[in-house]
Amino acid sequence: MPSRAPVYLDHAASTAMLPDAVEAMTAVFAQPGNASSLHGSGRWARRRLEEARESIASSVGARPSEVIFTGGGTESDNLAVKGIYAARRRDNPERRRVIVSAVEHHAVLDPATWLADAAGAELVIAPVDAEGFVSSSWLRAELAAHADETALISIMWANNEVGTIQPIVEIAAVGAEFGIPVHSDAIQAVGHIPVDFGSSGLSALSLAAHKFGGPQGVGALLLRRDVECVPLLHGGGHERDVRSGTQDVAGAVGMATALRLSVEHMPAATEHVVALRNRLFDALLAVGDTTVNGPRDERRLPGNVHVSFDGCEGDSLLMLLDANGVECSTGSACTAGVAQASHVLLAMGLDVSTARGSLRFSLAPSSTAADVDAVAEVIGQVVDRARAAGLVSSPTGKGR
Amino acid sequence: MPSRAPVYLDHAASTAMLPDAVEAMTAVFAQPGNASSLHGSGRWARRRLEEARESIASSVGARPSEVIFTGGGTESDNLAVKGIYAARRRDNPERRRVIVSAVEHHAVLDPATWLADAAGAELVIAPVDAEGFVSSSWLRAELAAHADETALISIMWANNEVGTIQPIVEIAAVGAEFGIPVHSDAIQAVGHIPVDFGSSGLSALSLAAHKFGGPQGVGALLLRRDVECVPLLHGGGHERDVRSGTQDVAGAVGMATALRLSVEHMPAATEHVVALRNRLFDALLAVGDTTVNGPRDERRLPGNVHVSFDGCEGDSLLMLLDANGVECSTGSACTAGVAQASHVLLAMGLDVSTARGSLRFSLAPSSTAADVDAVAEVIGQVVDRARAAGLVSSPTGKGR
Repeated sequence: MPSRAPVYLDHAASTAMLPDAVEAMTAVFAQPGNASSLHGSGRWARRRLEEARESIASSVGARPSEVIFTGGGTESDNLAVKGIYAARRRDNPERRRVIVSAVEHHAVLDPATWLADAAGAELVIAPVDAEGFVSSSWLRAELAAHADETALISIMWANNEVGTIQPIVEIAAVGAEFGIPVHSDAIQAVGHIPVDFGSSGLSALSLAAHKFGGPQGVGALLLRRDVECVPLLHGGGHERDVRSGTQDVAGAVGMATALRLSVEHMPAATEHVVALRNRLFDALLAVGDTTVNGPRDERRLPGNVHVSFDGCEGDSLLMLLDANGVECSTGSACTAGVAQASHVLLAMGLDVSTARGSLRFSLAPSSTAADVDAVAEVIGQVVDRARAAGLVSSPTGKGR
Repeated sequence: MPSRAPVYLDHAASTAMLPDAVEAMTAVFAQPGNASSLHGSGRWARRRLEEARESIASSVGARPSEVIFTGGGTESDNLAVKGIYAARRRDNPERRRVIVSAVEHHAVLDPATWLADAAGAELVIAPVDAEGFVSSSWLRAELAAHADETALISIMWANNEVGTIQPIVEIAAVGAEFGIPVHSDAIQAVGHIPVDFGSSGLSALSLAAHKFGGPQGVGALLLRRDVECVPLLHGGGHERDVRSGTQDVAGAVGMATALRLSVEHMPAATEHVVALRNRLFDALLAVGDTTVNGPRDERRLPGNVHVSFDGCEGDSLLMLLDANGVECSTGSACTAGVAQASHVLLAMGLDVSTARGSLRFSLAPSSTAADVDAVAEVIGQVVDRARAAGLVSSPTGKGR
């Protein structure tokens, strides 16, 4: 690896903490206190927690009482999908259908699949078009036929791989038309594009702090007061009795600080990041035999760049770029070293070999033109080498 | 409140972070990286996480692969109780009995109750004696009659209110005799008394970082490799596929650091804390009409002091002490301002009025003789005032 610091372009996986968020957490760390305790130190901790709740609510257009602190995005998604399903079926056992899009993160897909495997749910997959969009008219037709049997809908706000921003307000409106609660995994959206829970029409929304400069292991579920949700974690009755467990006061404060700053700086950050994104797209497309996945307009997350390189393995590209000091991701899950084609790209109609030759670069407000230029400098030779390796290692063409 | 810093004697609720743990976390905060990412920054994060896992394993006599990181003690307890129950019933639907002690924390009692209410379990409550001990011969008789119908046993290592240390190795041995997995909530034990998972005979054990100088919102479940456990959180397949969600690398590092230091300093800390505890007991008993709850020997957590004051409301005592700069807890849950007598004390045979007149003081290695003397100085007048208030406010005697 070169001796200079790596060019980190994997902010969608986890971005560095904002220094102000670290400082805010450190101030809490210095003080003992359980937010449930009645004495002075407990009340101090409780105040910090409730200030963080109010700040987060204000950053995303929610009411403080709608903010449920969790241990991260995956917990928020699981709580919404499993908890709302359980509550809806408890009220009416006929409501077995769970509608999720084909491009959801595993944190939604997997609990939904588990509900089908172990809890009597019927999983309904909403298809997407070539750019990754869910169709609200498909949803309306589905609900017109099956509203009475539908427990909930979970459609992400923006896709973690290709950056497609769903027409979430339209989708929520269709859910509302039929009285079906709609949850949205907004983990890639919050802090990056405007998100207003109150006016979205959603029943529930997941967010995760480490995607916008807060700490890992901290998230929230925004949950309307009129939406019933059976807890996953039972105990002391914290967080409206929806999520028990001693609250992570420092984590909540760090998340609130990072979110407030991300929202405050969003207009300038978006302009900056979109300009870098376009410059990076140009550099990648200059390689040849390269295609952009997802939309190339304002319906894409500002910092998301996702391309397929013909005749390459994404993992080879990733490793060669890493060796050249550039850090990105394939955008697809890797289990025990076995690369699988992304379910997102397959749902968008890509063939397996094209899907496997894909890379995601994700930018942050801290990204610079020099970062993009570092990619531009090496991407040609990296792709050449990966293509040569692909031809050698896959005589059957499987590697393409 | 006096202008001096309060005397914090509620370390069992949440103790201050150790400065070394804060420093170790801050070093991680400065660096971006998702431990699942394949590039250099991801591998750096993964190394920190795995070093933390190895350190924790070494501190509690476990293997690294037995350490499952979670979002805290409540999650660990819920995962063990609900997850092992679900796995056992999946294998054999007849195994419906869930045995928990009468003095468990709500983080065990409540998921067990939920299993009975919503998932077909039969809840079996193991009684305790006047000092809060579960009897292993009671357990043997119970299993002799019902082993084939028993899913799991969950008995805490040490009680959070009265500090009783259970004969957990004996209990685990009885479970093993009948082939029933035994989980132990060791959240008050780990970092305070010797805990060796490997030689304990337990199948699973919960711990929480903020009880021994680590951060809030971070915990672990120790889980033997041969014990099946259905996940609560489905998704990316992190943590042996038992607990999905991006790992909190900084939190894991902070927890590992705090646990290593707590275990290293345990012999000296125990001697110091036990001496302070005895001094505090003497000061409280000097008040008169005061009784110690739980054992007064080596079978009690070093830092736990729990007493009942005849004719008082614990909440009044707590508030008056707080006004005098001393912070402690009643040891009982308070919901919406309505004090309920502790289920732990009632299970030990206390009457409701005695139970309601109880206080828990919990000490840490950082506690001093001056802290104890501060209590000694004010406790007499505080109890006098609370007793007077109890007589006035409760003519029916309910307040006693």
